[in-house]
Amino acid sequence: MRFTFDIDENGKIISNKNRGMSLEDEISKSNNYYLENHIAVIYKKATPIRVVKCVNNKITEAYFEQKSTTDFNGVFNGFHIDFEAKNTNNKTSFPLANILDHQIEHCKNIIIQKGISFFIIEFSSLNRYFLVPSIKIINYIKSTKASSISLKRFINNTFEIERRLKPPLDYLKIVNEHYSSFFE
Amino acid sequence: MRFTFDIDENGKIISNKNRGMSLEDEISKSNNYYLENHIAVIYKKATPIRVVKCVNNKITEAYFEQKSTTDFNGVFNGFHIDFEAKNTNNKTSFPLANILDHQIEHCKNIIIQKGISFFIIEFSSLNRYFLVPSIKIINYIKSTKASSISLKRFINNTFEIERRLKPPLDYLKIVNEHYSSFFE
Repeated sequence: MRFTFDIDENGKIISNKNRGMSLEDEISKSNNYYLENHIAVIYKKATPIRVVKCVNNKITEAYFEQKSTTDFNGVFNGFHIDFEAKNTNNKTSFPLANILDHQIEHCKNIIIQKGISFFIIEFSSLNRYFLVPSIKIINYIKSTKASSISLKRFINNTFEIERRLKPPLDYLKIVNEHYSSFFE
Repeated sequence: MRFTFDIDENGKIISNKNRGMSLEDEISKSNNYYLENHIAVIYKKATPIRVVKCVNNKITEAYFEQKSTTDFNGVFNGFHIDFEAKNTNNKTSFPLANILDHQIEHCKNIIIQKGISFFIIEFSSLNRYFLVPSIKIINYIKSTKASSISLKRFINNTFEIERRLKPPLDYLKIVNEHYSSFFE
């Protein structure tokens, strides 16, 4: 997922409180709900930053580094959970260029270790959210060499996530009900 | 764990390549071994940094934030693994002030979710390493209100980690052989 803050002409971070809730916010709110209700312990991984210069606890030179894995991980009733969140403005398909090769490698490694690996994909302009087990994306890329996945395929072959008030995106309901879908 | 780099008088990061291998390095090397050999997928969590100012991809003002959880997590043969690494120069006991209250809360949450939660404690001056299931530290604090754990107690009640060439610290061997110790 991309950083969700904006930067003004002076380089100051602009608060995004007046914008719609981002996918990351919706997931973080869901994770807070899961944590408070002892349903799961899932956190966003911190953005890796390479620190070059630091004076009296103030960092004065640093750079964002490309993350080598995925956005979120944690534990849910004995299951290791690991996932990436992506959104697209496209109304009819999700471009696979959004998923990096090393992320696919990471997902394969998680599956080998019997972890639950998936993507949450938001079609922003449609306000629809899908949970896709990584194994399905891996197999689809392998068998078709396609560069995108159609919305129709999402609807027929993946899991649409229920929008609720609490939690906003109840993605663990799908993990709970469709465990075997994450491995075959 | 504390940051392992030093800063010179101009605020530049000094390479620590000439120092002895830190506990964090030993664990990271072990994790690389586990990853390359498809034994486990365990990473150090990135240090959370609050970015205040950023100009053309260069961060010019930022601050280290206190992490709210632990140092490492990942998955090993279906087990969710979560642990903190700490060292002490003390030769006879480990001061419990090194472990923060919110870290204990995090460990409790992991255990509730059936994750494997533990501490790796290094007695630096003795060159000895122990794996301690978090449940044992939680119960010990609860029953004794003690402010430290003696080396003798480590030797008799926890698991000493074998030093090897590859991996340097084979801590997953203990997880594999003593699963029930992490929950009672």
